[in-house]
Amino acid sequence: MNEKITSVVDFSKGNGLITAIAQDAETGEILMVANMNEQSLAKTIELGEAVYWSRSRQKLWHKGEESGNTQKVRDLYLDCDGDALLLKVEQIGGAACHTGKRSCFFRKLDRDSVTDVGVQVFDPKEVYKQ
Amino acid sequence: MNEKITSVVDFSKGNGLITAIAQDAETGEILMVANMNEQSLAKTIELGEAVYWSRSRQKLWHKGEESGNTQKVRDLYLDCDGDALLLKVEQIGGAACHTGKRSCFFRKLDRDSVTDVGVQVFDPKEVYKQ
Repeated sequence: MNEKITSVVDFSKGNGLITAIAQDAETGEILMVANMNEQSLAKTIELGEAVYWSRSRQKLWHKGEESGNTQKVRDLYLDCDGDALLLKVEQIGGAACHTGKRSCFFRKLDRDSVTDVGVQVFDPKEVYKQ
Repeated sequence: MNEKITSVVDFSKGNGLITAIAQDAETGEILMVANMNEQSLAKTIELGEAVYWSRSRQKLWHKGEESGNTQKVRDLYLDCDGDALLLKVEQIGGAACHTGKRSCFFRKLDRDSVTDVGVQVFDPKEVYKQ
């Protein structure tokens, strides 16, 4: 990874991780939030597709490697203190969430209720065949 | 905080914290990302304004309490695994970043360059008088 990039991204505050937000480049919809380490950011830049770091599996997670729903990265933006990254992406397949919904942020919270407002794009049972 | 809310938000994975993303409700622009603990989420819902948890200062951070640039919360969305929150907000004063820029995500990363593409709204020296 180019030294100009590594010099501005701060992995130290998050124990080697930064927050990565994926936003639909066309609609502005927030699709998901995940983490990246230095290796996954380098891979994201190299491939032009989102590669996160899975905290639960402790390994690189090339988004869509199983479902085919990759995220083509159009633009990358770093925040003021260098520990959060915004990815403007083209979401292949139209859905980012493992539930088959377009966005992971499908639960609307109100004072006394939680409502599912998600747009179902695919059936996860069909896509993630075990 | 209503038990329906507390039952779906998962503070355990992030040592008591969730990730909170503020998005301009009108334009869809991502303004900033910060953290919330249970107390700050309860306060956010109570006030209808964004209240984060400052990790560096280890205290509640009512966004805009000093600058006046509060964030009026229009809607709240929780992600699929309950550890990230999306706030659709009206950004009072037009700028979310302590640098006086509209968004904290003002550094565009390319393979070999970092470019400031931010929109300067106010002069931080004027706003944060010490």
